[in-house]
Amino acid sequence: MVMRRKVYVEGPRPDIRVPFTEVVLTGDNPPVRLYDTSGPGSEPSAGLPPLRKPWQTGRTQLASARAGIITPEMEYVAIREGVPATLVRDEIAAGRAVLPANINHPESEPMIIGSRFLVKVNANIGTSAVTSSIDEEVEKLTWATQWGADTVMDLSTGPHIHETREAIVRNSPVPIGTVPLYQALEKVKGDPLRLSWEIFRETVIEQALQGVDYMTIHAGVLLEYVPMAAERVTGIVSRGGSIMAAWCLAEHRENFLYTHFRELCEIFREYDITFSLGDGLRPGSIADANDEAQFAELRTLGELTHIAWEYDVQVMVEGPGHVPMHKIKENVDLQVSLCGGAPFYTLGPLATDIAPAYDHITSAIGAAMIGWFGTAMLCYVTPKEHLGLPNKEDVKAGMIAYKIAAHAADIAKGHPGAQEWDDALSRARFDFRWEDQFELALDPATARSYHDETLPAAPAKTA
Amino acid sequence: MVMRRKVYVEGPRPDIRVPFTEVVLTGDNPPVRLYDTSGPGSEPSAGLPPLRKPWQTGRTQLASARAGIITPEMEYVAIREGVPATLVRDEIAAGRAVLPANINHPESEPMIIGSRFLVKVNANIGTSAVTSSIDEEVEKLTWATQWGADTVMDLSTGPHIHETREAIVRNSPVPIGTVPLYQALEKVKGDPLRLSWEIFRETVIEQALQGVDYMTIHAGVLLEYVPMAAERVTGIVSRGGSIMAAWCLAEHRENFLYTHFRELCEIFREYDITFSLGDGLRPGSIADANDEAQFAELRTLGELTHIAWEYDVQVMVEGPGHVPMHKIKENVDLQVSLCGGAPFYTLGPLATDIAPAYDHITSAIGAAMIGWFGTAMLCYVTPKEHLGLPNKEDVKAGMIAYKIAAHAADIAKGHPGAQEWDDALSRARFDFRWEDQFELALDPATARSYHDETLPAAPAKTA
Repeated sequence: MVMRRKVYVEGPRPDIRVPFTEVVLTGDNPPVRLYDTSGPGSEPSAGLPPLRKPWQTGRTQLASARAGIITPEMEYVAIREGVPATLVRDEIAAGRAVLPANINHPESEPMIIGSRFLVKVNANIGTSAVTSSIDEEVEKLTWATQWGADTVMDLSTGPHIHETREAIVRNSPVPIGTVPLYQALEKVKGDPLRLSWEIFRETVIEQALQGVDYMTIHAGVLLEYVPMAAERVTGIVSRGGSIMAAWCLAEHRENFLYTHFRELCEIFREYDITFSLGDGLRPGSIADANDEAQFAELRTLGELTHIAWEYDVQVMVEGPGHVPMHKIKENVDLQVSLCGGAPFYTLGPLATDIAPAYDHITSAIGAAMIGWFGTAMLCYVTPKEHLGLPNKEDVKAGMIAYKIAAHAADIAKGHPGAQEWDDALSRARFDFRWEDQFELALDPATARSYHDETLPAAPAKTA
Repeated sequence: MVMRRKVYVEGPRPDIRVPFTEVVLTGDNPPVRLYDTSGPGSEPSAGLPPLRKPWQTGRTQLASARAGIITPEMEYVAIREGVPATLVRDEIAAGRAVLPANINHPESEPMIIGSRFLVKVNANIGTSAVTSSIDEEVEKLTWATQWGADTVMDLSTGPHIHETREAIVRNSPVPIGTVPLYQALEKVKGDPLRLSWEIFRETVIEQALQGVDYMTIHAGVLLEYVPMAAERVTGIVSRGGSIMAAWCLAEHRENFLYTHFRELCEIFREYDITFSLGDGLRPGSIADANDEAQFAELRTLGELTHIAWEYDVQVMVEGPGHVPMHKIKENVDLQVSLCGGAPFYTLGPLATDIAPAYDHITSAIGAAMIGWFGTAMLCYVTPKEHLGLPNKEDVKAGMIAYKIAAHAADIAKGHPGAQEWDDALSRARFDFRWEDQFELALDPATARSYHDETLPAAPAKTA
């Protein structure tokens, strides 16, 4: 009988059990195994079991890799990706991959982000002051990981930030990212001029203790770069970038995230938190892509990457945004060269600005291309981008578009085994094995329902 | 007041009136003019006025261009594209662009397909034996052109093919394409082995008299190429390709479309019908992309292109299909070189096979890239591809995804003026001029409704 089921592959120790979705096909067609991010499932009130607790050594993954050690997390990831564990270790040691795993988030299933591995997708969720509840956000988290989210960022604002994050981390089988600046700003009643290193530091530690796996830090928005954005069509559009730019201009001092960066590294090392160096000056429109402000900040992010590495702290680097197709590759090439090959983590990019309500599509185009060129993780964009907060259907639409983009990139990069999924589905299609085709589809239920709406397709529609 | 309205720009003679959609913005922001394919509107029973009737000279557009003449159609197109009329004439004369305009379809508003011009989008519609009526198809035609279809292909099968096509041509402000083989097959009760040159010829003339502007002709499926598809994952998936392959194998003779190609050229010249040389051996899966069968046929299409040009007949060349990102550019480069720069007209391509129900997205990725590389027209793919016949909502979803792809390509190619649309929308976004942003959006109503679902976006969502 055609179906999907969860199977586990055991690693070199019995507590390493790596999940896959196995699609069982008709006849003697071999089953197909797909990467699985959905986690073991849980009661939100109880949280997930602390899988990684017994594996902790007090060293960061980067420090272990540099010492030549293959951690259980690396073994897990190697099975998950279908690659040698030594490759996982060596890529982490070189800084070209990160394994985000806060010691206080033992519930997460290890995963890796790096250009030699499968392209990953992040989903943003989060409450705002005016909409949604904690339960809704946990439901969105579960929903996002069911649709393949490799990490989830909790971008909550408004009241209950701490409680929302606690519920999300305890129930998340994937690494959780945050932007601590958002909570720091809540603590000073939304006034950027009242921000300080002390308040920020306290917020980071609060989130570190909860188990946040990676944090966006806008340490590259330097005082001298802010005027470079003045002549732009869309100025500064990153929320974190705007906040830090406002602080720098008002204080006429250097960004405190930059001046205190080494202290941050010490905190991050203690919990094995991964830096996601924020691109506060990313372009907010096609017109502003690849400009002086963007690339000046990128140079600073390169400098900070090397500093973090001194502390054995893992780093990824965030990228744009809105970039026309002919300017995408330059972003990757420059990031790789300036940041020593640290994983690139981009939002889209959108290849055109003309289609609000369809920015999951405008950006899936750019995301597929930038993934092919070497971006390690894609931050999804939903149809509500620029218009409002995503609901569950928007989360699904964003995830589907981005799983397509990431997989198209895996194929183009020649990732071992990536094309087997396509080939299995295409064979099913050519043989008119409809049920096999549906179960192999990224979204089986929708494929089945579209087919059932009309009669079986004419021959011309079969491929 | 913010609004969209239709305006006309007059040409060098008073009966040349070129339509644009003008978006009127708030304050002193200048209006933005967008390319407009929606036509003058009509009562389906009356049809559209025969705009081009007075312009006919008995020469094809290619013959006129080669004689150094700028026809009224070329003047019209130059205004529409914002380029010199001499460029239009010279590109047509060189075979690098086509202006499909059957003398019996005087209702169509002239448009041009070529890599130096805006990337165009074709929408496929058509009745089947089991679903939809003539009225529904005319409604789909009107719907498709409202969403920006530059040409429409009527792929009707089953009864009432002739009447359906008549209603479509008489009501179409855009060029209409067909695959005459489909109707020829109906005439022999669906049995490919009863097909003949005589029946095909009669069908072509019937459609020529009705005013079909371009016809897909699968003349490149040669007997010797058929075995090359035997080892493929998905064999031959083009319906026309399958029919001709079946005929060639059963008769063990050369494809009659190839052996009678010069006679076809004579008919096409008489009506100024444009060839769309079909890719009957296009890949139906990622696995089969860029293989021997596909490129062997492309070489033959190159040969046929040059023959058609001997007869002053315009030509475009069809392309795939399913192609992973890293193999897309090779398709364009080879087509340009083998077909002397004749416009390339591709279906997608889909960059992955794993997402039936979302193939408007899997293929918009490939379409945007291939458009940037030089493809002149993109054949849309709807969410129902591989699953069933598209309804109105599917037509819209396909058109939106492809207008995004085409526009992203125009920007990446640096088409003069293309980015002005993006810049106007981005300025509106940055200024929080919501109504301006909505009216400038590709789909104003959907953008507005998504915004109204939640409260205005937080600053982080503004770009």
